[in-house]
Amino acid sequence: MILTRPICMDLSTGVLSGLGVEEVSRTISDLAGVFGDEQARLALDPTIVVYRVQSYLPAANGTEGGLFWGTTFLQPGLVGDEYFMTKGHFHAKRDRGEYYVTSSGEGALILMDEDRRTHFEPMRPGSVHYVPANTAHRVANTGASVLSFFACWPSDAGHDYETILHDGFSARLYCDNGRPKLVGAD
Amino acid sequence: MILTRPICMDLSTGVLSGLGVEEVSRTISDLAGVFGDEQARLALDPTIVVYRVQSYLPAANGTEGGLFWGTTFLQPGLVGDEYFMTKGHFHAKRDRGEYYVTSSGEGALILMDEDRRTHFEPMRPGSVHYVPANTAHRVANTGASVLSFFACWPSDAGHDYETILHDGFSARLYCDNGRPKLVGAD
Repeated sequence: MILTRPICMDLSTGVLSGLGVEEVSRTISDLAGVFGDEQARLALDPTIVVYRVQSYLPAANGTEGGLFWGTTFLQPGLVGDEYFMTKGHFHAKRDRGEYYVTSSGEGALILMDEDRRTHFEPMRPGSVHYVPANTAHRVANTGASVLSFFACWPSDAGHDYETILHDGFSARLYCDNGRPKLVGAD
Repeated sequence: MILTRPICMDLSTGVLSGLGVEEVSRTISDLAGVFGDEQARLALDPTIVVYRVQSYLPAANGTEGGLFWGTTFLQPGLVGDEYFMTKGHFHAKRDRGEYYVTSSGEGALILMDEDRRTHFEPMRPGSVHYVPANTAHRVANTGASVLSFFACWPSDAGHDYETILHDGFSARLYCDNGRPKLVGAD
């Protein structure tokens, strides 16, 4: 018997609602070690919410063949000159892909392959981004309003945050005279 | 090296554009054996396009861990009293799930599990539907305008149309005094 029920998504904001929608927040205090300028991070109010993630997980975590859905709301802001961004991760199962679709705001999807080559794709409403296998991914808000994007990923992808916390990406996205500039790319 | 590029999706219509977007059409003549009233189908202009599918396939078909993206545009119409609908399929790999998200119009996602229990979920703009493992799925347009919905599914899911062409769903969605009614459900 089929037990899932549809949920709703506001297509212009990505906001999810309905039975089974969960939400987590990441504050400045949760993001120790993520930004290049740790002193600048410590100087900010630790309770500031940098991003919220709504997710809909209709299969058990780890299920092969299932899919998850979620929307991230990333606030505008800077830590020093570095844009507010998500922690970034590889998938624990390295060959699992993912889609990101921008619903509102302006941003950058930062991608790094396993040879540590980093580039970014501009995000704007309606941009559809494929994160291929073996590719770390994080998102920065490069605009002045909330960046929201929805995502679909396999329920057995898993998240490897540790590799990025330890090694970082090979480049960071800074605000350089009001425009995004990737610094440190090989 | 990462070789994919973002595409664009109009969030209010689901229309995809960009490098790598493909399109196929299904006409009345392509849908032999799909509707309950074959005589009514044969009486229609065989060149009428019932639906178009745009797809973006950034991984090779059959790749484990990859994901595909696509939008279907399903015209309003009837074959006898049965709504215009897609052929319907199981995934060849039965445990692969899928998401359908409605961008415009009104419809019904018809789902049948492997015990042939059939039900439907109303589709309206912003409705997010999860097709679980082991579940045949087809979509009917129950409204007066184009129904468009976008989808995400695993690149190794595959399509088994044959089982549905041979056995059908256990119920059909008819227009009964202007409202959808599932007839024949167990």
